Amino acid sequence: MTAPSAAFLTIGDEILTGRTRDANMPLLAAKLVDKGMPLREARVVPDVAAEIIGAVNGLRSRHTHVFTSGGIGPTHDDITADAVAAAFGVPIDVREDARAILATNYPNPETDLNPARLRMARVPEGATLIDTPVSKAPGFSLGNVHVMAGVPAVFAAMVEGLLPRLVGGPPLLSASLRADVPEGLLAEPLARVAAAHPGVGIGCYPFNFGGRFGANLVARSTDPAALAAAERALADMLRGLEAGAG
Amino acid sequence: MTAPSAAFLTIGDEILTGRTRDANMPLLAAKLVDKGMPLREARVVPDVAAEIIGAVNGLRSRHTHVFTSGGIGPTHDDITADAVAAAFGVPIDVREDARAILATNYPNPETDLNPARLRMARVPEGATLIDTPVSKAPGFSLGNVHVMAGVPAVFAAMVEGLLPRLVGGPPLLSASLRADVPEGLLAEPLARVAAAHPGVGIGCYPFNFGGRFGANLVARSTDPAALAAAERALADMLRGLEAGAG
Repeated sequence: MTAPSAAFLTIGDEILTGRTRDANMPLLAAKLVDKGMPLREARVVPDVAAEIIGAVNGLRSRHTHVFTSGGIGPTHDDITADAVAAAFGVPIDVREDARAILATNYPNPETDLNPARLRMARVPEGATLIDTPVSKAPGFSLGNVHVMAGVPAVFAAMVEGLLPRLVGGPPLLSASLRADVPEGLLAEPLARVAAAHPGVGIGCYPFNFGGRFGANLVARSTDPAALAAAERALADMLRGLEAGAG
Repeated sequence: MTAPSAAFLTIGDEILTGRTRDANMPLLAAKLVDKGMPLREARVVPDVAAEIIGAVNGLRSRHTHVFTSGGIGPTHDDITADAVAAAFGVPIDVREDARAILATNYPNPETDLNPARLRMARVPEGATLIDTPVSKAPGFSLGNVHVMAGVPAVFAAMVEGLLPRLVGGPPLLSASLRADVPEGLLAEPLARVAAAHPGVGIGCYPFNFGGRFGANLVARSTDPAALAAAERALADMLRGLEAGAG
């Protein structure tokens, strides 16, 4: 079985102008590693229907699941639900179960649920609502596209409600080693270790702490035995380099 | 004249696994707003040649400029330069001017510049090197694609070296107003203001400080007069809402 793959789509001018720093991708990315459904691609698009539709359709055909963040509030720039409906070619309208969830946020739903707020209960035909411990505008899943809020606390709650419903693969395991050796001296032996362990992804992330150059080595695999073998090979490599440098 | 548009491509498994939180996009995004070359799209792809090539070719045809971050170090997982050369269909090899810049980092370039480090002097045919105050592995521009480091301090230095060379448009100006009114009550009058000011992008970003709901309103335009008019309309709208609530 091929491991399921995931893509993340962030919708919002505020991210593209640098006004807001995205906090949702690191959270989702880490959860998906544990779920065995690694993020393989991420995109950010502006609050423009054609851009959202194009990205949703581009991503949903290539990945097992697509997670979106942003653009589901009550204001004129919140157009994600309509764009996702358009991407799938299905109608969208206020749905009673979504309206009922939304109503729980307001003391006087009859009057408080004005037309703008009711927009948050618009759900594309055929979608499933995402349960959230924090009741709010409901997110929804349509096919393999999961539409969630941009506000980090609400996004996190929706992820908690959604992920248990999805079938993951074996979790992506990792091992980290710190090398107090400059990256340029690590590169050749590291490439040999990587080539000898093709089932393990090996990354090298350089650091410089006050003039001391080194790198963190991270090995990742869904196969515990392959990961352990790569970790031993990396540790042996580092001992050899330290002995050579001493 | 249409304003120039920009795209940002981040290359790196460490971002997609959530291990590293990207700091480069907010920095670049803010610089590009001032430059009048707003970021219209951003993507993150893994350290996989086909993914990088596909993203570079997808983005460079749609945008005036494409900025990349990551994958230009000396290790086996640093494949951005080769992938960009492949995307353009041009050869790549060590270039003397790049080697000379690289050599300034090492006390004994003759012996320190091992084959792995020399990989950082590989530059696609036809590329221009990016001047950086911090000498390091040089970045480069090939056509409208600008290839830079992932390490934030080096990325920032490369952006400083690069941006003065590029022709921007009128800077994207913004005005912010704080509304102490829940987003659901703002939405309808706000949509009317937005519709009446089509040359101004108006975003609404809700907040909740200890149970006090409100939103920051941000208007953006390259036209100072249009921006000022929208700002006045938003202020009038807020006064009207506060009077209504009082």
